[in-house]
Amino acid sequence: MSKGLPKRSEDYSLWYNELVKKADLAENSAVRGCMVIKPYGYSIWEKMQAELDRMFKETGHTNAYFPLFIPKSYLSKEASHVEGFAKECAVVTHYRLKNSEDGSEVIVDPDAKLEEELIVRPTSETVIWSTYKNWIQSYRDLPLLVNQWANVVRWEMRTRLFLRTAEFLWQEGHTAHATKQEAIEETVQMMHVYATFAEQFMALPVVKGVKTENERFAGAEDTYCIEAMMQDGKALQAGTSHFLGQNFAKAFDVKFATKEGKLDFVWGTSWGVSTRLMGALIMAHSDDNGLVLPPKLAPIQVVIVPIYKGEEQLDAISEKAKELMAALRAKGISVKFDNRDTHKPGFKFAEYELKGVPVRIAIGPKDLENNSVEIARRDLLSKQTVSLADVEIGTFVEELLAEIQDSIYQKAKTFQTEHITEVNSWEEFQEVLEKKGGFLSAHWDGTGETEEKIKTLTKATIRCIPLDAKEEAGTCILTGQPSARRVLFAKAY
Amino acid sequence: MSKGLPKRSEDYSLWYNELVKKADLAENSAVRGCMVIKPYGYSIWEKMQAELDRMFKETGHTNAYFPLFIPKSYLSKEASHVEGFAKECAVVTHYRLKNSEDGSEVIVDPDAKLEEELIVRPTSETVIWSTYKNWIQSYRDLPLLVNQWANVVRWEMRTRLFLRTAEFLWQEGHTAHATKQEAIEETVQMMHVYATFAEQFMALPVVKGVKTENERFAGAEDTYCIEAMMQDGKALQAGTSHFLGQNFAKAFDVKFATKEGKLDFVWGTSWGVSTRLMGALIMAHSDDNGLVLPPKLAPIQVVIVPIYKGEEQLDAISEKAKELMAALRAKGISVKFDNRDTHKPGFKFAEYELKGVPVRIAIGPKDLENNSVEIARRDLLSKQTVSLADVEIGTFVEELLAEIQDSIYQKAKTFQTEHITEVNSWEEFQEVLEKKGGFLSAHWDGTGETEEKIKTLTKATIRCIPLDAKEEAGTCILTGQPSARRVLFAKAY
Ligand SMILES: [Zn+2]
Ligand SMILES: [Zn+2]
Repeated sequence: MSKGLPKRSEDYSLWYNELVKKADLAENSAVRGCMVIKPYGYSIWEKMQAELDRMFKETGHTNAYFPLFIPKSYLSKEASHVEGFAKECAVVTHYRLKNSEDGSEVIVDPDAKLEEELIVRPTSETVIWSTYKNWIQSYRDLPLLVNQWANVVRWEMRTRLFLRTAEFLWQEGHTAHATKQEAIEETVQMMHVYATFAEQFMALPVVKGVKTENERFAGAEDTYCIEAMMQDGKALQAGTSHFLGQNFAKAFDVKFATKEGKLDFVWGTSWGVSTRLMGALIMAHSDDNGLVLPPKLAPIQVVIVPIYKGEEQLDAISEKAKELMAALRAKGISVKFDNRDTHKPGFKFAEYELKGVPVRIAIGPKDLENNSVEIARRDLLSKQTVSLADVEIGTFVEELLAEIQDSIYQKAKTFQTEHITEVNSWEEFQEVLEKKGGFLSAHWDGTGETEEKIKTLTKATIRCIPLDAKEEAGTCILTGQPSARRVLFAKAY
Repeated sequence: MSKGLPKRSEDYSLWYNELVKKADLAENSAVRGCMVIKPYGYSIWEKMQAELDRMFKETGHTNAYFPLFIPKSYLSKEASHVEGFAKECAVVTHYRLKNSEDGSEVIVDPDAKLEEELIVRPTSETVIWSTYKNWIQSYRDLPLLVNQWANVVRWEMRTRLFLRTAEFLWQEGHTAHATKQEAIEETVQMMHVYATFAEQFMALPVVKGVKTENERFAGAEDTYCIEAMMQDGKALQAGTSHFLGQNFAKAFDVKFATKEGKLDFVWGTSWGVSTRLMGALIMAHSDDNGLVLPPKLAPIQVVIVPIYKGEEQLDAISEKAKELMAALRAKGISVKFDNRDTHKPGFKFAEYELKGVPVRIAIGPKDLENNSVEIARRDLLSKQTVSLADVEIGTFVEELLAEIQDSIYQKAKTFQTEHITEVNSWEEFQEVLEKKGGFLSAHWDGTGETEEKIKTLTKATIRCIPLDAKEEAGTCILTGQPSARRVLFAKAY
């Protein structure tokens, strides 16, 4: 199964593409830039969704659904939003097809042209704030804490499965508040929710920070983000949370009566994560044998593979497997017994390695004799023989899964720590970026001009001003101008 | 809150529209025919989704995701499918906007015209079968049991919230099988799954049947369906399950190697339910005071309303309310304590009636003295005083919710039974249709011509040939030609 998977060290990019396809996660469709998320990939996304949705609800949000289409004129309403988003969009111009005259195909009916073109949503601020205008009259209607799970479309020219696709799935939270302070607190809270999810479920350490003005969301006053480090040292923005100020309220005239009886514009936030997280999950942990999945997001946590000759041995092993499954399921562990007689054990081992199943239990005739099983963990590719007389298997595997979850996180954390480098000169910046990679912690003069220049020269961008950046006087690595704190530079996905 | 809700008897259609809006279920958006599903409405849909998704997984299906866009040429591939679906669709022709010359607005960039237009999916058979071609080589790859939760667009000219909207949410199952028999069994199984869901969760009795050729899905060889009866006697098709034969396999060249080593086309099914079910749920049970929700789908099952003067009374009642909430939550019952001091109890009572909360518990100072509560059930609008010394409140409410669920179903079932009328002449057919309404069980000669004529004359269509229709010789009500069994006619949504 894992045959033909390139090595990370040889071609990281090709390794990623092949892994996504071979592990049955996703594939390109016939429509340029649109992917098919295959059942195995989708079941991981469902697990992510379930946890995130629970976290959103625990912080007081409810889900709703807004239209796929946005009238073109809406995109002209928030000036800086237009600049950022109006360009690469799918535009609906007609609403009917008809049969061609010779009946051989369907054609667009020229008589069915829309008066105003519709844009397939690239993000929903405009259509949602035009709706909020009717929902909000008084401070009693606030805060409004709404999330939407939806598909969005951005016409990307160069696409990669999960990382950058024309259509992708995401959630977008859109909240409205009576005060600036409350909106900022919401923005920050959701960044923390994303960080908690990344670290506790994806086993992915992240840096929390604020974007520079250049990298800010179009229409936002501040963009908070979480930045993750991939195994090639590049950064992947894993979630963003925007403080919108009163920008969209002003663009769509959303005012409310305050407690004091005055009229004021509403304060807004928006925040989102997408199927890009799948890309982050894959690239952060996987190896040359295939996927490595943190147990909390693995669709199958344990697979049991029988090793047998003939039906009699299989029957006896199946008996034992059933006992094990019952014990594991009682602990809430998802387990699959692969008794296909069309494939050899070696083939199955490779398949589950490729698919990142965290724990594999093999049972052969010798194991039956000894009342033991062989337990392999995917992350370390290590094996041990476990005597069933010595352990309660449910508890043993439960603890093993927790250990694997933690171990995957620690490995990524160590890698991240080792690859955040303080650099203090332009020469050092270039050298570390080229030779070591990772995140570069460096002084910057705070201007968009310098940021742009560094990007042009090195392809590195400022990923964020970390929230925990300490006050430290220094000089900009490029211009030598004064700087008050270090920011993080990296090449990014 | 319920002020201004029209009476069903006066204007059923207006009653429905107003109820959907006033109960905060959905509203029209600025985009013609596209609705906003509001948080309260969406939370009911989420409950439906969760149960259906569980049922699909229990029958062996997994979820996946396919592209929103379909290349126009795909729609020409399955001839009868084109006929049925190619007409009213949203067509994407361009992929970029740009700023107008004066910078005041965005316009469609004429240089960014797609070579081939893309259709926003009205249903996904074509794009999915084009994908299945690559997934299926051998009988070992079958059956393929996939479902998708997605938005779809059909450019409806006359729209109504939930019942008929340009964009709607649905699930579409698409399965592939090695044999005709297995595909038919899958088709029938999913019709039963839908019927079970409608009856056990929506408290909605349905008739299971097969569509006539005229009413069949474009591209199907047989369409099974469940038909529900609304309170105005009209039918609402609540779910369909299609046996596709080898039609899509042939259109997209999907062949597999059989066990015997031959090549054969794959057999297909597709099946779906949509946010239309929300319309069915609302219209089947609700009354002039607002929504009536079956407890199994109610986002809030129990609301506790305090009746008090002054803070001291509220504090004492809140203590009692907390005890009750703990007891109810221990039973898995969702409960809300509405202690808003901005609204009077009477206002709250009307609001929860409008929103269909199944059980209301009121606690006043007298109740505290007597260790009692007043319990009202939404479906019957009845009240009783319950002594907390006499019952374990968790068990009491749990049983009450089950009774309400059953009672709502029985009421709908009685209505349905009373409104299925056997008619034996054309005169009787017209009279019953006009005066009594409901479903008419009548003999029909089996021709599309007669079916069409009856539709033109009366607006009644054949809803289905019921699965349990007994063999019974008779003569067609319109033509007098021989007939072997009765079919169900009705006016329909
Ligand atoms: Zn950042
Ligand atoms: Zn039917």
